[in-house]
Amino acid sequence: MTLISPSRRVRRTPFSDGVEAAGVEAFTVYNRMFLPTMFRSVEEDYHHLKSAVQLWDVSCERQVQITGPDARELIQLLTPRDLAKMKDDQCFYVPIVDETGGMLNDPVLLQPDADRYWISIADSDLLLWVKGFAAARGFDVEVTEPDVSPLGIQGPKSDDLAAALFGDKVRDLRFFRHMKVEFQGREFTMSRTGYSKQGGFELYLEGSEYGMMLWDALMEAGKSMDVHAGCPNLIERVEGGLLSYGNDMTEENSPHECGLGKFCNSDADFLGKDRIAREAAEGPDRRVAPISIDGKLPLCDRAWPVLIGDTQVGQVTSAIWSPDFNTNVAIGMINRGFDDPGTSFQIQTQAGLRDAVVAPKFWN
Amino acid sequence: MTLISPSRRVRRTPFSDGVEAAGVEAFTVYNRMFLPTMFRSVEEDYHHLKSAVQLWDVSCERQVQITGPDARELIQLLTPRDLAKMKDDQCFYVPIVDETGGMLNDPVLLQPDADRYWISIADSDLLLWVKGFAAARGFDVEVTEPDVSPLGIQGPKSDDLAAALFGDKVRDLRFFRHMKVEFQGREFTMSRTGYSKQGGFELYLEGSEYGMMLWDALMEAGKSMDVHAGCPNLIERVEGGLLSYGNDMTEENSPHECGLGKFCNSDADFLGKDRIAREAAEGPDRRVAPISIDGKLPLCDRAWPVLIGDTQVGQVTSAIWSPDFNTNVAIGMINRGFDDPGTSFQIQTQAGLRDAVVAPKFWN
Repeated sequence: MTLISPSRRVRRTPFSDGVEAAGVEAFTVYNRMFLPTMFRSVEEDYHHLKSAVQLWDVSCERQVQITGPDARELIQLLTPRDLAKMKDDQCFYVPIVDETGGMLNDPVLLQPDADRYWISIADSDLLLWVKGFAAARGFDVEVTEPDVSPLGIQGPKSDDLAAALFGDKVRDLRFFRHMKVEFQGREFTMSRTGYSKQGGFELYLEGSEYGMMLWDALMEAGKSMDVHAGCPNLIERVEGGLLSYGNDMTEENSPHECGLGKFCNSDADFLGKDRIAREAAEGPDRRVAPISIDGKLPLCDRAWPVLIGDTQVGQVTSAIWSPDFNTNVAIGMINRGFDDPGTSFQIQTQAGLRDAVVAPKFWN
Repeated sequence: MTLISPSRRVRRTPFSDGVEAAGVEAFTVYNRMFLPTMFRSVEEDYHHLKSAVQLWDVSCERQVQITGPDARELIQLLTPRDLAKMKDDQCFYVPIVDETGGMLNDPVLLQPDADRYWISIADSDLLLWVKGFAAARGFDVEVTEPDVSPLGIQGPKSDDLAAALFGDKVRDLRFFRHMKVEFQGREFTMSRTGYSKQGGFELYLEGSEYGMMLWDALMEAGKSMDVHAGCPNLIERVEGGLLSYGNDMTEENSPHECGLGKFCNSDADFLGKDRIAREAAEGPDRRVAPISIDGKLPLCDRAWPVLIGDTQVGQVTSAIWSPDFNTNVAIGMINRGFDDPGTSFQIQTQAGLRDAVVAPKFWN
């Protein structure tokens, strides 16, 4: 790992002071904003995430806010998922695809208030796609990036921590639903979502100036639960098969390739419909798969070709050692016919070839 | 400075192996790609840049490639600059603005071949804006990010180095013009451009597989010129008043605010025309200015408020000590009436207040 140079362009967050005080060791950059990647060590953070509760500065999940009379019509055009099925308090995972059916982002859509939508984005400037589309078509909408920064509460003790600060009603919040919580006389939207399989919430901080008050209050309330600053954990997310946009899928991949076919159920005229309809009928040419790899691995910082003899049949894009499952866990995109569980092949890493096999399912 | 975690999402470049072998010390992330920021030290790199020649891995200046019959019409709609004035071999600095006149990017447009345009971008996914606009309006174009990675040759000995590899004809290339050069039997586009005031070229590597061959050949050819791996240098760029998108301007700023009024000369119906016409007539409410700051500065990793008493009259967004000019050089955006040379005010840094004054002009 190398050092990262600070500049305004790579943005700090409302929680950066807290993250630094908690001893962050490494970052990545996500939507031109700092995202912590390690506090104690990736393995220590992992064990703690699975046993206690962590605060995650996921401010980099920026919001594309859409208001105005045409908001819903615009969004429906941009996703293959049928928005008519979305409940008022629901968080809706919506693949966003371009006109060729390629994934541009895999965000969560919610309607925090009757008059506005938030698209909570992965790592691409989806704002520009939505704005460009709206401007070109003359939709009556306003598309902005508001001062909203999500704070994750993740881990098995998340309900206890959230209840300590916001009351027991948070325990009744259903998976992928949102509610309002109150803090210091202000209302914030909180959802039962998050980028781990350990349970928890995302609290949408609106107004950067309240960031550190909220961070400090949660740290204080969570002392007895061994709360610690944390972050999305590479081991845990690969075990759980949580895809990362830019790592495991790019604009070259369709929703069906990414295992997101079930979210392609709209009858409206959305972009990319031709490819999506064809792949729904015929199946995609390649598909995301869980892969178990033998031997010692270097850092997976590039796509690793998957080989059978000299023939490339896919690629691995995330991989790391799993202490709990005693194997290297990995996510790959594998050509049709080579993605059945038990299929063996080799992985070309920058440190040489490694034997690998398609696992029956993701581990968590 | 903290460590940066590797992942596929933050992309390596065709020259990364060379950059690492040359002993890179720090990176930033730019268009989700590594951009080196320091090799020996920022000051040592700076003195070397001003006296010798450097190879810069600026692959992160990604290209938005536009082909198809409607390409030119589409581009003209997206910029206030009149494309009719662009020569075939010219590199055209084109502010790209949204429908409100806010800057989305400040790229360079060129036409490397008769049938395609490249928009060589700063740090935002302009690809999505152009694609979204084209898809929504049904323009007959194809908009892609091709496998093209610019390599900078910068410094006073740039002509000597380029001539050593590509022949003496490169010496006749005019400022902001491009030509074809040959390497290993392949043609590449090279322009007399670059993000320094020291002179030099940008070579548009097309085909990642040729990256290290080109890097190694230039390193070999430049031995007698003390060639070294380098990168955009913060001191040198602030001295020269080279703005950085995301640092010194964002989508909140208009071209006139950024000092780019001279590039707003199109009579066509471009986006954001209302604001741009109004500011052309009345002047913008704030403007980029060179600022000299007293005292020891912390790292400028956030916008610093510019204060007269308790009143904020602007912000500073890039600042660093200049050994050659014996002052802290800075770039700010200052409200009208407070941007005249000699105006004094204070800067609120994270380490306290500093006295400052508007300089007569940028230093280089």
